[in-house]
Amino acid sequence: MSRLRGRVVIAQGGGPTAVINQSLVGAVLESRKFPEMTDVWGALHGVRGIVNENFVSLSEATTHNLERVAQTPSSALGSTRDKPDAEYCHRIFNVFKKHDVRYFFYIGGNDSSDTVRILNEQAGQEGYELRTIHIPKTVDNDLPITDHCPGYPSAARFVTCAISGVNADISALSGIYIAVIMGRHAGWLTAAAALARKHDDDGPHLIYVPERQFSVDRYLDDVDRVYQQHGRCLVALSEGVWATRNEQGREVPLAIDLMRKAGREPEVDAHGNLQLSGGALADELASIVQKRMGIKRVRADTFGYLQRSFPGVVSNIDAREAREVGEKAAHYACRHNVDGSVVIRRTGDYAVKYELARLADIAAKTRRLPDEYINAEGNQVTDAFRGYLRPLLGDDLPGMERLWAPVARVG
Amino acid sequence: MSRLRGRVVIAQGGGPTAVINQSLVGAVLESRKFPEMTDVWGALHGVRGIVNENFVSLSEATTHNLERVAQTPSSALGSTRDKPDAEYCHRIFNVFKKHDVRYFFYIGGNDSSDTVRILNEQAGQEGYELRTIHIPKTVDNDLPITDHCPGYPSAARFVTCAISGVNADISALSGIYIAVIMGRHAGWLTAAAALARKHDDDGPHLIYVPERQFSVDRYLDDVDRVYQQHGRCLVALSEGVWATRNEQGREVPLAIDLMRKAGREPEVDAHGNLQLSGGALADELASIVQKRMGIKRVRADTFGYLQRSFPGVVSNIDAREAREVGEKAAHYACRHNVDGSVVIRRTGDYAVKYELARLADIAAKTRRLPDEYINAEGNQVTDAFRGYLRPLLGDDLPGMERLWAPVARVG
Repeated sequence: MSRLRGRVVIAQGGGPTAVINQSLVGAVLESRKFPEMTDVWGALHGVRGIVNENFVSLSEATTHNLERVAQTPSSALGSTRDKPDAEYCHRIFNVFKKHDVRYFFYIGGNDSSDTVRILNEQAGQEGYELRTIHIPKTVDNDLPITDHCPGYPSAARFVTCAISGVNADISALSGIYIAVIMGRHAGWLTAAAALARKHDDDGPHLIYVPERQFSVDRYLDDVDRVYQQHGRCLVALSEGVWATRNEQGREVPLAIDLMRKAGREPEVDAHGNLQLSGGALADELASIVQKRMGIKRVRADTFGYLQRSFPGVVSNIDAREAREVGEKAAHYACRHNVDGSVVIRRTGDYAVKYELARLADIAAKTRRLPDEYINAEGNQVTDAFRGYLRPLLGDDLPGMERLWAPVARVG
Repeated sequence: MSRLRGRVVIAQGGGPTAVINQSLVGAVLESRKFPEMTDVWGALHGVRGIVNENFVSLSEATTHNLERVAQTPSSALGSTRDKPDAEYCHRIFNVFKKHDVRYFFYIGGNDSSDTVRILNEQAGQEGYELRTIHIPKTVDNDLPITDHCPGYPSAARFVTCAISGVNADISALSGIYIAVIMGRHAGWLTAAAALARKHDDDGPHLIYVPERQFSVDRYLDDVDRVYQQHGRCLVALSEGVWATRNEQGREVPLAIDLMRKAGREPEVDAHGNLQLSGGALADELASIVQKRMGIKRVRADTFGYLQRSFPGVVSNIDAREAREVGEKAAHYACRHNVDGSVVIRRTGDYAVKYELARLADIAAKTRRLPDEYINAEGNQVTDAFRGYLRPLLGDDLPGMERLWAPVARVG
């Protein structure tokens, strides 16, 4: 089988991760080895860079520069929130034809995989030979089929470390702490807080994810009970938890619900979207605990962007796998002449292999936490989840040692 | 000169830091070497543990356990917000007399140093031989005399890394980001954001500290100007910035001011304190920018507890110095038979030596950013500040490499 000859375009879409540049560099360096891949172009700011023909020549980036970029968080090529429809994809396709682009690698999440799928279909319809590979990344871990998604383990490591630190903090000074963690539809990242627990009385004592309806009364009862037992309480909560449904049966985010109960109407922007801020959610969650329990030391923080772009808090497993899915994209496209989405299959404790899934099976689908990862009360994760996540976090997690010293005899 | 013989009590006060346990372990291990220091006791939860006679025998902690505790953030002995008055100190003093305590080491900030001062005076008045040493720690860096305070460099490193990551994040996707950073009275920690800047167009583009009055109009103009120039804007702001003075001439925190302007009255707790939440401040700062500029992608995060208790983001310089100020406390007390507060003097670029300052010169004083560290416009720090902070951050800061690739010829 003769290999397809032509240009490569690579781009990055959606929110950044700590290791998305590992995938970029893996795909670039591997593509540069194939003589059939005549040029490796990077599109600036995702699909937008393609339609605007804003390309850089990655064939001419130094290896040293690329290796250092690989260790830098966030998308080095720039990213975009554009979600192309069929017409937008048609414009992309025309640019590809104009420049004899025969390979397209798009590093991104659900939306990006859908773009790759549409382009793949258009190429097929027009009989234009184009290899299209979706390289997965997302801190949300919500892609189907793959055991986990590159980017998630490092974000999870950040959350685990942050919660470990806060746990030590409130152990020293007591109090109640609520961490608002990313995740609009799936609780994978919030669940990662559970791995901070080393001793029975460690936090997080309560974990709330969008896979379960949130009850304010239950939350207050839970916090009260934990505080009575331990003299402190650490809560991890997804920003996307919801408490009620509206008339159309759609889930109403808790942040909106709490604001309305407090007599404030959330603002609506020019596009008609409710303005949902993590700060307001955190404040309301702290405020209702303060009112109910009369405790002053209640603090809530929104982890925000830090959890997806903090440099230096990276899982070595994640860095390696992100690199490898990028490399595999080049192999599948050039050596195997096939299209798809690279997925990770776990083969043991802990090893993986890489496979190629059909784009239609990945695109625009969301994987939520399965039932066996959430406890019956809906306020904690299970050992099964801990077993799933633990190897992904990588080596050299902080020890979080407690002081072991006998009580001094003062009598 | 014969050395004083008796028990050692060591305690930790105030908010945690990433390296406060280095000081604890330094003081404990060094004290255990002196035969005159017959027992090393740790008081649980600071001065409260002393009056309640809650002690652990640190003479019986294993070296291995202590060395691992040293690398764990937050106060391993527990901490307290109690600020003892003369009567409280008298109770502490009575416990010391009862148990033949002759050495007291208190690791803490301004308030803790004041407690040490009062105890020292009471011992002097009663002719009881007691060596009292204040071991400095604070993430706020607001202690006088010392070049810098252990705990600050690691918190500063966290802020620098976090802002580096956010800078890469908003470079990829554009937008405006406001980081609300700890610091009620001094801007040292917020100023550390400046070290994230590697290229001219990197954030933080604007830095606001409590040493300067904050003007909402100026802030909006500044953000607008930066956004027009760079297509993005990264702001670092101290939680304690103030915009107005009330009738009594006291500074009113911006968070309160903004809430009132938005028609909301801040809540007052049982003690009559205004409830000032970082979440509300962040949301209001984002909201007024959205309204003024009509930009959707405006995000504000409050770094909160993460900046003082995140494990694994530690300056190696800070860890070493925190250890050494603990060790020096034992030396000064036992070998030199003197009282005081251990301070760090910078002797070059970069080396330090340790000295002992008078307690009265440290206690309950606040050091703010000097004028030469803030620019004339009051919205950025100077190169002099960068020179001051750079060596404290330690080695192996993230590289934050940009991709350097030539524009592809598409013509």
